[in-house]
Amino acid sequence: MDERSSSETRGKHIRCRAAVSRKPGEPLVIEEIMVAAPMPHEVRIRIICTSLCQSDVTFWKMKDFPGIFPRILGHEAIGVVESVGEDVDEVTEGDTVIPTFMSDCGECVDCKSKKSNLCSKLPFKVSPWMPRYETSRFTDLKGEVLYHFLSVSSFSEYTVVDIAHVKKIDPSIAPNRACLLSCGVSTGVGAAWRTANVETGSTVVIFGLGSIGLAVAEGARLCGATKIIGVDLNPDKFEIGKKFGVTDFVNSGNCGDKSVSQYVLLKITLWLDSSLCTFLYLIEQVINEITGGGADYCFECVGLASLVQEAYACCRKGWGKTIVVGVDKPESKLSLTSFEVLTSGKTLMGSLFGGLKAKSDIPILLKRYADKELRLDEFVTHEVRFDDINKAFDLLIEGHCLRCVIWMDK
Amino acid sequence: MDERSSSETRGKHIRCRAAVSRKPGEPLVIEEIMVAAPMPHEVRIRIICTSLCQSDVTFWKMKDFPGIFPRILGHEAIGVVESVGEDVDEVTEGDTVIPTFMSDCGECVDCKSKKSNLCSKLPFKVSPWMPRYETSRFTDLKGEVLYHFLSVSSFSEYTVVDIAHVKKIDPSIAPNRACLLSCGVSTGVGAAWRTANVETGSTVVIFGLGSIGLAVAEGARLCGATKIIGVDLNPDKFEIGKKFGVTDFVNSGNCGDKSVSQYVLLKITLWLDSSLCTFLYLIEQVINEITGGGADYCFECVGLASLVQEAYACCRKGWGKTIVVGVDKPESKLSLTSFEVLTSGKTLMGSLFGGLKAKSDIPILLKRYADKELRLDEFVTHEVRFDDINKAFDLLIEGHCLRCVIWMDK
Ligand SMILES: [Zn+2]
Ligand SMILES: [Zn+2]
Ligand SMILES: [Zn+2]
Ligand SMILES: [Zn+2]
Repeated sequence: MDERSSSETRGKHIRCRAAVSRKPGEPLVIEEIMVAAPMPHEVRIRIICTSLCQSDVTFWKMKDFPGIFPRILGHEAIGVVESVGEDVDEVTEGDTVIPTFMSDCGECVDCKSKKSNLCSKLPFKVSPWMPRYETSRFTDLKGEVLYHFLSVSSFSEYTVVDIAHVKKIDPSIAPNRACLLSCGVSTGVGAAWRTANVETGSTVVIFGLGSIGLAVAEGARLCGATKIIGVDLNPDKFEIGKKFGVTDFVNSGNCGDKSVSQYVLLKITLWLDSSLCTFLYLIEQVINEITGGGADYCFECVGLASLVQEAYACCRKGWGKTIVVGVDKPESKLSLTSFEVLTSGKTLMGSLFGGLKAKSDIPILLKRYADKELRLDEFVTHEVRFDDINKAFDLLIEGHCLRCVIWMDK
Repeated sequence: MDERSSSETRGKHIRCRAAVSRKPGEPLVIEEIMVAAPMPHEVRIRIICTSLCQSDVTFWKMKDFPGIFPRILGHEAIGVVESVGEDVDEVTEGDTVIPTFMSDCGECVDCKSKKSNLCSKLPFKVSPWMPRYETSRFTDLKGEVLYHFLSVSSFSEYTVVDIAHVKKIDPSIAPNRACLLSCGVSTGVGAAWRTANVETGSTVVIFGLGSIGLAVAEGARLCGATKIIGVDLNPDKFEIGKKFGVTDFVNSGNCGDKSVSQYVLLKITLWLDSSLCTFLYLIEQVINEITGGGADYCFECVGLASLVQEAYACCRKGWGKTIVVGVDKPESKLSLTSFEVLTSGKTLMGSLFGGLKAKSDIPILLKRYADKELRLDEFVTHEVRFDDINKAFDLLIEGHCLRCVIWMDK
């Protein structure tokens, strides 16, 4: 990879390699592209490494809007500032930075409030443009516009990111660890830590032990939860989960494991009466038994409205909190009743980027990693060269991978 | 009324007058009934006065289960202990007490926890029986069982209530004020104070300015909310609301008032396109404008799942809380999506009995009334003799009444 000095490139277009997603579901194409200089309030970053997140796969497959092509995907990354646009004081050339899909402008009422992480100035949306100007900084060599993704587009040797989406970090932390805090691990850990504010000694249920769910477990462990129950269709996830604090496992699929024999029996009942309602009731029974009345916190990390329902049912009456972390289709409705919300004493809330404020919370998590409290190493199950980026997609889709780090310079 | 001394009646049946609801929607019948002696953990109470709450009317009209007849309704009251059953130490003969439809046993995990007011020992349910034994203490003179209501049944000169549903109070407070804390005012004030924990300087929207909604306003006012917006179909409610801290009013019906002209214009648009979705969006717009981006807290006090939806839409993104206070039919679904819960940063919760713990919180509210902080006087718009109890029903149904106090001895 071509690491040009800033003095050569500053203010000019940079020609570099990017992995372009040209058609839904088809392998990314590594090709040369042009990256324009940053506009005011923008930063051009040389990506060190990027990891693949489930949302990249989701938008890579998406045939209809907000799926759009050709696009440069990627949003979990770390890099070095190549140059900055006008009105950028927060970082300078050579700084190591983490880009984030959530903005933290520091000026709007939300960014100034302790209660919100939903910046009003550059609000979260799945746009194909740079957030401030609604234009692109990418073109291919034929001059065709390439679309942005989640304000980051890290599957490129160089990218441009708005300063509100960039956090300068301590460069001494290994980049293939720090990059995980750019999206997935922060989202999960933050959901337990910031959104739910899990109390010491509490019980937690996590629906879906993918990377996000495991990061929720890690967050709950750090908060001192004593029972962290993973619910997944894949029983292999329990062994993986133990590394992140999962203490109990409920196999939501058909499984002969003796420890879940009660559950299996319930599953057989379910097959006889396949109504969703029966299914919900049964998961609730199992969790009710393990927790002695319902969990203090339930996290939905799969992205299914029906599972949110299930999570709600598994919560302890009187104080249980259900936190939506997974992304379902915008039209997927919950089937909660007003009456159960009224009478259950339970709370329903969502957690976008774990409720974290990117600029103040990422440094805290990095410090906890440096202090050997937060586990990051265990998330990185695979590493590939940029040329092999499509292998990262295969690995994540096959389900044997938590995080695959893609190195730009290897 | 026959105020016998306890020494004459203790341990025996008491023959007294009650207003029996014999058929759905038909006038109550004042008749003589027999009230059995209290069982262990129970207290027999001579009712001083009782007020009529919307739930009494709802169950009076209800043709199907949990509507059941013949029944002694009434659950908002104050009285004097006539005698106690075995194992009752908390109160003694002659004590002034407030009964509550919510139990506070003081022993279960919920009652011991600061986080819950949903007693596990005698959980809230709309049962026709005494809560601990699932039997009745009432018979008519033919020996037929009369059903209980909400563990209180205060439309009788004497009633029997479980000790977990009885709180001894300072007898110096006027009974026609103190009785309001037995249900309605506590529910509303508590929803703002305990459930939502309204912050000083915040904005509040209340859907439905009935007694409960007005009590929410009063609670929000006590918590220091600076903008308290009432939403109601009846514009007269604004004048009434002002007494309880309502600062702004949105007429959700068709109204020519100039101050809501923008809203009226929106209503006309609504008639052209009568989809519910448009309606929701419009209310949201109005509230958005008044609050500058959405309210910090929205309370649904009507009991319509569709209004919960509207309340949720009116909440400030990032931190807004929607609190369900009104009781809708158990089957009425919300139409929230998983995606909007995830991305909005809003919280949805319910408030049963205002999240209050009856035994510790009612004395606090009584003290705030004595200290002239909490307004109770303004809620009592009518008072009638027990013989005129049906007039109280007429008044509440006509909508000109907040609380009608029914005096047993007048
Ligand atoms: Zn901001
Ligand atoms: Zn991501
Ligand atoms: Zn209890
Ligand atoms: Zn009531």
